[in-house]
Amino acid sequence: MTGAGTNHTIPSLAGGPAIILVRPQLAVNIGMCARAMANFGLSDLRLVNPREGWPRTGALRKGAYAAAAGAVHLLEQAKLYSSLEEAVADLNGTFATTARERGQLKPVLAADTAMTEAATRLSFGEKLGILFGPERTGLDNEEVALADKIVSFPVNPAYASLNLAQAVLLVGYEWMKAAHGSAPPFQPADRSPAAPREMILSFFDYLEGELARVGFFRPLAKRPVMQNNLRNMFHRMNMSEQDVRSFRGMIVRLVEGPRADKPKKKSQPSSDDKG
Amino acid sequence: MTGAGTNHTIPSLAGGPAIILVRPQLAVNIGMCARAMANFGLSDLRLVNPREGWPRTGALRKGAYAAAAGAVHLLEQAKLYSSLEEAVADLNGTFATTARERGQLKPVLAADTAMTEAATRLSFGEKLGILFGPERTGLDNEEVALADKIVSFPVNPAYASLNLAQAVLLVGYEWMKAAHGSAPPFQPADRSPAAPREMILSFFDYLEGELARVGFFRPLAKRPVMQNNLRNMFHRMNMSEQDVRSFRGMIVRLVEGPRADKPKKKSQPSSDDKG
Repeated sequence: MTGAGTNHTIPSLAGGPAIILVRPQLAVNIGMCARAMANFGLSDLRLVNPREGWPRTGALRKGAYAAAAGAVHLLEQAKLYSSLEEAVADLNGTFATTARERGQLKPVLAADTAMTEAATRLSFGEKLGILFGPERTGLDNEEVALADKIVSFPVNPAYASLNLAQAVLLVGYEWMKAAHGSAPPFQPADRSPAAPREMILSFFDYLEGELARVGFFRPLAKRPVMQNNLRNMFHRMNMSEQDVRSFRGMIVRLVEGPRADKPKKKSQPSSDDKG
Repeated sequence: MTGAGTNHTIPSLAGGPAIILVRPQLAVNIGMCARAMANFGLSDLRLVNPREGWPRTGALRKGAYAAAAGAVHLLEQAKLYSSLEEAVADLNGTFATTARERGQLKPVLAADTAMTEAATRLSFGEKLGILFGPERTGLDNEEVALADKIVSFPVNPAYASLNLAQAVLLVGYEWMKAAHGSAPPFQPADRSPAAPREMILSFFDYLEGELARVGFFRPLAKRPVMQNNLRNMFHRMNMSEQDVRSFRGMIVRLVEGPRADKPKKKSQPSSDDKG
């Protein structure tokens, strides 16, 4: 599923809401979160009291940086806070991610709705942050109380546990869709222009003529229905000019039988195209 | 972000398109994919020539099963194939996930569009599969050619590499949204009923009367504008009956000053409620 990887020639997307990891337990998970952020153009990583300490130095650095893959720059730029209040001080709004109901009277938004709201508010100049709790326990109630709204994910109720980096990934993915559009990152390969109807009808005439000649339409009374069915099959192919030429060449070959060693002159100059 | 985890009392969602891991390199990643599938109610895991072999036994089992967390049942039920052709034989349609353009004339769908189509087709009784290539290289061109359509993800073009389990997670998440709806898994805590206008207007009368008494509205000509602004602030709170009682109690307390040790009888019986 990879095969693209980090591309240093394309300017990286940046911005978006801050990702605030509250008391994350494992440095390696911080690295995985950085990677998920980079995938979707998020760049503001904030850490509140990481349990293993600040993963920029020492033994932790290796695991965190390996997990971050090409996104170590986000670890380098991450900010460290000793309280959640400090981490959200400059923000205009905060969303708390939780996997279960927390008994707090706040709006509960699905991640897509939350990120659509975030994209609008950021476009008006607001600064927002998304809070993620520790791996094992999630945010505690006092931390959730510091947020304006709750974000949750539609999950299998029998198996609702998302790991920290997965939750960051889903928020980042919905941010990307809301802020930058959900079009896939590439379009199909260039294809030959769509065939004009004239070309397709000429092909039908040729094909149906040959099929009639070899007695394909039996009983004859069914020819109109059989022809319509065939035509609809070809219509579903949405043929390009090259597709029509290739198909026509294929039928010509089947009709005429094996090619002689020295190919004879044809009346259909493009009938040998293979597409 | 967890705090919910595996719940054995709720029937697990199952079904959805098959997840087909083609030549996956690491057993631990197979386990992580199983976990991502379980999160979003997918249950048909197929492995084509896993590089480390079948992770049900031996040394591989430990890592794969640990990574699968509560989703080991998906590993137990997974099917093993020696070719992609065998793995897709019973399916009516296949989607190939790729991170880059593959020079093949197939429709390229974003994951959300693809899973919306999948939900419709599965509801008509079709069987579908999603192909995921090896971690490092992705699907090769012959494998992509076996698919009807290509699925890709909107990603940061400068950092487009998703790991295998992340790609499975995003497909599963979009499947969940398409097949089971995107509502968050819980609603806000039960709250007191929304306050009737009469109750809110009575509170405004009381509050504005007290504010007038203490000379808050200065200059007096601005009182209407100041009152409207205040009322709009309260309207944004979308108050419940309990909210109005709590707020009114707060104002009463501020107006009357410190409570005597033995509270005197009040004309507002509910004014001490704290909400």
